[in-house]
Amino acid sequence: MARINDNFLKLKAGYLFPEIARRVNAFSEANPEANVIKLGIGDVTEPLPPAIAEAIHKAVDEMAERTTFRGYGPEQGYAFLREAIAENDYRSRGADVSADEIFISDGSKCDSGNILDIFGTDNTVAVTDPVYPVYVDTNVMAGRTGDADDAGRFAGLVYIPVTAENGFVPALPEQKVDLIYLCYPNNPTGTVASRETLKAWVDYAKANDSIILYDAAYEAFITDPEVAHSIYEIEGARDVAIEFRSFSKNAGFTGTRCAFTVVPKTLEGTMADGTKTAIHALWNRRHCTKFNGVSYPIQRGAEAAYSDAGREQIGGLINFYLENARLLREGLEAVGIEVYGGGNAPYVWLATPEGLSSWEFFDRLLEKGHLVGTPGSGFGAAGEGYFRLSAFNTRENINEAVKRFQQVVA
Amino acid sequence: MARINDNFLKLKAGYLFPEIARRVNAFSEANPEANVIKLGIGDVTEPLPPAIAEAIHKAVDEMAERTTFRGYGPEQGYAFLREAIAENDYRSRGADVSADEIFISDGSKCDSGNILDIFGTDNTVAVTDPVYPVYVDTNVMAGRTGDADDAGRFAGLVYIPVTAENGFVPALPEQKVDLIYLCYPNNPTGTVASRETLKAWVDYAKANDSIILYDAAYEAFITDPEVAHSIYEIEGARDVAIEFRSFSKNAGFTGTRCAFTVVPKTLEGTMADGTKTAIHALWNRRHCTKFNGVSYPIQRGAEAAYSDAGREQIGGLINFYLENARLLREGLEAVGIEVYGGGNAPYVWLATPEGLSSWEFFDRLLEKGHLVGTPGSGFGAAGEGYFRLSAFNTRENINEAVKRFQQVVA
Repeated sequence: MARINDNFLKLKAGYLFPEIARRVNAFSEANPEANVIKLGIGDVTEPLPPAIAEAIHKAVDEMAERTTFRGYGPEQGYAFLREAIAENDYRSRGADVSADEIFISDGSKCDSGNILDIFGTDNTVAVTDPVYPVYVDTNVMAGRTGDADDAGRFAGLVYIPVTAENGFVPALPEQKVDLIYLCYPNNPTGTVASRETLKAWVDYAKANDSIILYDAAYEAFITDPEVAHSIYEIEGARDVAIEFRSFSKNAGFTGTRCAFTVVPKTLEGTMADGTKTAIHALWNRRHCTKFNGVSYPIQRGAEAAYSDAGREQIGGLINFYLENARLLREGLEAVGIEVYGGGNAPYVWLATPEGLSSWEFFDRLLEKGHLVGTPGSGFGAAGEGYFRLSAFNTRENINEAVKRFQQVVA
Repeated sequence: MARINDNFLKLKAGYLFPEIARRVNAFSEANPEANVIKLGIGDVTEPLPPAIAEAIHKAVDEMAERTTFRGYGPEQGYAFLREAIAENDYRSRGADVSADEIFISDGSKCDSGNILDIFGTDNTVAVTDPVYPVYVDTNVMAGRTGDADDAGRFAGLVYIPVTAENGFVPALPEQKVDLIYLCYPNNPTGTVASRETLKAWVDYAKANDSIILYDAAYEAFITDPEVAHSIYEIEGARDVAIEFRSFSKNAGFTGTRCAFTVVPKTLEGTMADGTKTAIHALWNRRHCTKFNGVSYPIQRGAEAAYSDAGREQIGGLINFYLENARLLREGLEAVGIEVYGGGNAPYVWLATPEGLSSWEFFDRLLEKGHLVGTPGSGFGAAGEGYFRLSAFNTRENINEAVKRFQQVVA
């Protein structure tokens, strides 16, 4: 009798974004003339940079010729891409990461879920609240939690609130936790962590033999020179942290798919008998056994993100989205809304007006402004009363959205 | 204290192909002048068909224009590709599979490992022996086995021998098993299953509430009109089977990456309380939570595999590799080797001469013939005394390989 994994049944019925899509579709069907502007899901809108498209074209041509055709590549990714990442994303910032510590993948979402394969089910897991739902749901699936309460908090997980009350700085947990998810620049709040905050977490992890799962998918949006782009810019992080990065939000790869994960060779976990073992070897085994590498042309496209032309074109994209974020932030502030984030991230996080719940505000914005955002409560109980707007859109839509938003809340 | 998944420590030190690479590298370093011909790993050698390269180019151009750019696609894959698969791979053969039962992914290796997420750890798992190592290793990682014995058999798994003694027909297990891996055309033996054999397994699964994990990655190589291309050509299979398919070996996608998995909506598993639930919803949830869809240009390339030009070009590739297989088979038989497979598959499976072990024969072939194949024992204990040759190579190399092989065993 084939038995299912009953942990799946603990998951809430709908993942956040499908529920948003359902409400938007219902509204659009009832109001077919409405021009709905979507600032919900964090999906890029600008096309692939020309330098990247050109590199992919060239690689496809190679694949179409017998003499330059490539079959299976290294599961961990081609050396040309791993070297480019090590040099440009790490060594150039003084972070000590070597090419063979970098694993190329098809997405940070995938990696942040798959990484759990190599850890035992008996770890205590901490997440910030609000949080990117994938961290929670993948732990639920893997059996590291009990059931959810009415607010959506799963028994067994440690939730660390990050709200306006604590300045969006996650306090160190009072109990011991083993795996800790940190995401900076943060999704959904758009806030960043200071070097002091990161150092405190690295020290905590070191003192408790914990491992930090650091999601830096939005690092390209950092404008403040004091803010660290990588956890490995923090002393001691090589011994306690895994870092996730992506080409999705900087190079426009949400539909093209390429990302990477850094597992330092100095990082260790604890075996059942209490002795330490290298995490790198475990992840390498997992990656080679359950993954077959990223498409060769796509890896060539990602490599082009580090060429002179690619960097310049990506810089233009980042500035474009950051200007969108500024317009959103200032437009909202002009009508008295409390706004957070948006300066080093493509997300603007706002406190809903008039004490509305996140979903009440969602419905009001959709019905009265034909605007779609993301309810903060969809990211966790501590997100209740907040709302996320994405800066990924055309300038025209952003300007129109600001105007409508101001009318709705006026 | 971050605890690792200790199940990983049960895995054998080396995955088969890295061990082969190690021995070949050592030989090549010691004999730099040797022209080693590799018939080991099952990796295609012919370039991408022009119709497919053209479709990818076109989609990359779309991605480089704002008006046609695509960000996140549906996690399950684009409808254009799912529809093309349902029509061409299933409905055209009288198999009842709809587009929304098809999940596009980046590889069958990934899917056959990831599918285990949705099943409980307390299932009894059966594999044929010899077997594609990923089925075993992913179950070990997930904690469904004990330790391995000296022959490499893991406690808790049910191994079903398929050897020359039983005509490569897997006998139904005497004990109850819950999950059953079947792979046809078979990797590594290159043999096929008759409709009667498949029907017996479907009936067994139905009677025991088991689920068959059916790997049909090599179906395009079937030449015998009596052989089923899909498990869903067998009556009742929709209620008991998940099918894995790939573009790797037909359309030359080993380095381009696209595959799919079929989960019929009628397929059910059992919950802890004994009631049944749909597997489709569980896999959909897993896929959407831990995967973000295949690259849009690559999906367009896969779609082109079903165009008139694409089908004709792929037909040419298949015939080319099958002719290679025929040359290998007949060349080996000419010097008295017992050969299996190769008629409906790109693999030739042979009994080693003179009672040599698989690895002894590997070393002899490498040293005396500068030829690389895959030791049968690397696929499982029942593969000892057998050897796999891959037909994926240039015609020139195949002809040269046959000549050298004949000299070595003469």
